[in-house]
Amino acid sequence: MKKIKCYAPATVANVVCGYDVLGFAIDNPGDEVVVSFNNSNKTLITKIEGDQGKLPLDAEKNVVGHVVNLFLEKIDSNQGVDIELYKKMPLNSGLGSSAASSVGALVAVNELFDNPLSRQELLPLAMEGERLASGNAHADNVAPSLLGGLVLIRSYEPLDVVKLPTEMDLHVVSVHPHVDVPTGEARKIIRQQVPLKKAVEQWGNVAGLVAGFCTNDTDLIGRSMKDVIIEPIRSMLIPYFAEMKQTALNHNAIGFGISGSGPSVFALCKNKDEAEKIAIELHKLLSAQNISCESLVTKINNEGAVIL
Amino acid sequence: MKKIKCYAPATVANVVCGYDVLGFAIDNPGDEVVVSFNNSNKTLITKIEGDQGKLPLDAEKNVVGHVVNLFLEKIDSNQGVDIELYKKMPLNSGLGSSAASSVGALVAVNELFDNPLSRQELLPLAMEGERLASGNAHADNVAPSLLGGLVLIRSYEPLDVVKLPTEMDLHVVSVHPHVDVPTGEARKIIRQQVPLKKAVEQWGNVAGLVAGFCTNDTDLIGRSMKDVIIEPIRSMLIPYFAEMKQTALNHNAIGFGISGSGPSVFALCKNKDEAEKIAIELHKLLSAQNISCESLVTKINNEGAVIL
Repeated sequence: MKKIKCYAPATVANVVCGYDVLGFAIDNPGDEVVVSFNNSNKTLITKIEGDQGKLPLDAEKNVVGHVVNLFLEKIDSNQGVDIELYKKMPLNSGLGSSAASSVGALVAVNELFDNPLSRQELLPLAMEGERLASGNAHADNVAPSLLGGLVLIRSYEPLDVVKLPTEMDLHVVSVHPHVDVPTGEARKIIRQQVPLKKAVEQWGNVAGLVAGFCTNDTDLIGRSMKDVIIEPIRSMLIPYFAEMKQTALNHNAIGFGISGSGPSVFALCKNKDEAEKIAIELHKLLSAQNISCESLVTKINNEGAVIL
Repeated sequence: MKKIKCYAPATVANVVCGYDVLGFAIDNPGDEVVVSFNNSNKTLITKIEGDQGKLPLDAEKNVVGHVVNLFLEKIDSNQGVDIELYKKMPLNSGLGSSAASSVGALVAVNELFDNPLSRQELLPLAMEGERLASGNAHADNVAPSLLGGLVLIRSYEPLDVVKLPTEMDLHVVSVHPHVDVPTGEARKIIRQQVPLKKAVEQWGNVAGLVAGFCTNDTDLIGRSMKDVIIEPIRSMLIPYFAEMKQTALNHNAIGFGISGSGPSVFALCKNKDEAEKIAIELHKLLSAQNISCESLVTKINNEGAVIL
């Protein structure tokens, strides 16, 4: 029987100044989703691994089942589908865990049905997975996981997603400190009114970041990786954030920030040696404070989700 | 006796969504400033033409004299300088009239002294001209008038100005309706707190606009030329703004908006024919309402101020 397996990469949303509008995919970690037809007219989750039993097997309560049902509705099919989900990254880490699952399930099921939908058409369905997971149908994780690279969500209504050209071979250090910051909570503490002066600073930096990526200017990217609105508030939930940032910048990181809503943090680096050095230093820093963490060195992923 | 003449181009600040951070130069109109040494140790404005007698001849009260004095202070010179100012554009029009005068004076006097300062070093001095003219040392007119092209003011503190690459041959329609909107007043009506949701929309559009210019994507530029924060308020001061916008967009403008703080408006166009058609239509629209105006078709200027 035909089985389709898809790998969907983890993602770093916001990219410091681009709250809700920017995100990039990284080579690893990522989730794997396997789909196949079954003989019922139901979507069934037959296996979940790597979630320490935390995710529901009920298809409508799990993002993979939810988005597969939306896909079947969209293509007007009653076919039953079996789903196996292999979680390869921590939940609530800020690396787009739910996004990778949604995207993996959608790209896999689309392939199973011989690709009736384009990736741009899968995007709104993947965003519904985010709504189920966090209450907010944001696109800054699902879009880069689907498309790869650095992705701009220029607009939500109407949805307008642009994959930005970037030819740089940038390395990423990702550190996941073992502290709990659920996405929903991290969104709630954000102020809903911002001073115009700070908004202007922010869109100057967003513009600089995008220009830096488009023109392969790492200095400009570095100068632009400043967030005067969200980071000052969210970083309070992440122990030793300021010290980690200083350490990364002292060791030649292009920039450093919160990955999505945290608690994972990331550093963008010009090469692998510098990235590995920073990973070691950040690990050391947290260990000295008795905070355990996972750290990894990876690269910006340009392909997005792939069929294996 | 050595006389130096400089032409400094008019500019379109904000470029719809990029309030305070984006501006581009246009080929015309522009101011001309002529400088020469005199035998005193004073800066003297010896002639002003084209201002209908509105600008002060007192050097410290006129932006050209003010910025030349700042230049002399900066290079530590007691040399006296004569200045002639030829205004070639209306005051308070929203085309960066004071900016063109300041930049023209600075580039001319710098040349007179054999260029001791770079254009980037002249920029903060030109911004002081803006402070004198409008109470606010903004850079989004002086920077493009100095450098040409589309310029991003990524940051004011520290000042970080980036000339963005753009290879497109875009045409600009500029229309100056004869209604009075002083820059200072137009700034005062802007709200100082903005909803985060609108700020996010705005920085999505700013990012899209910059990406569009960097990748020569006129469709993306057009989709991004939306301002949800400043335009809804400032456009109330400009009669028939909504009708002009609709007319320009109906005739294939890439985008349309307020030039700086108005009352001038502009349309960005793919070619000269479309631009000329739009200029005629906007002229017609205002005439029918008994509003006189000047309209002109020009191009984005890539050189900035030049010595003639």
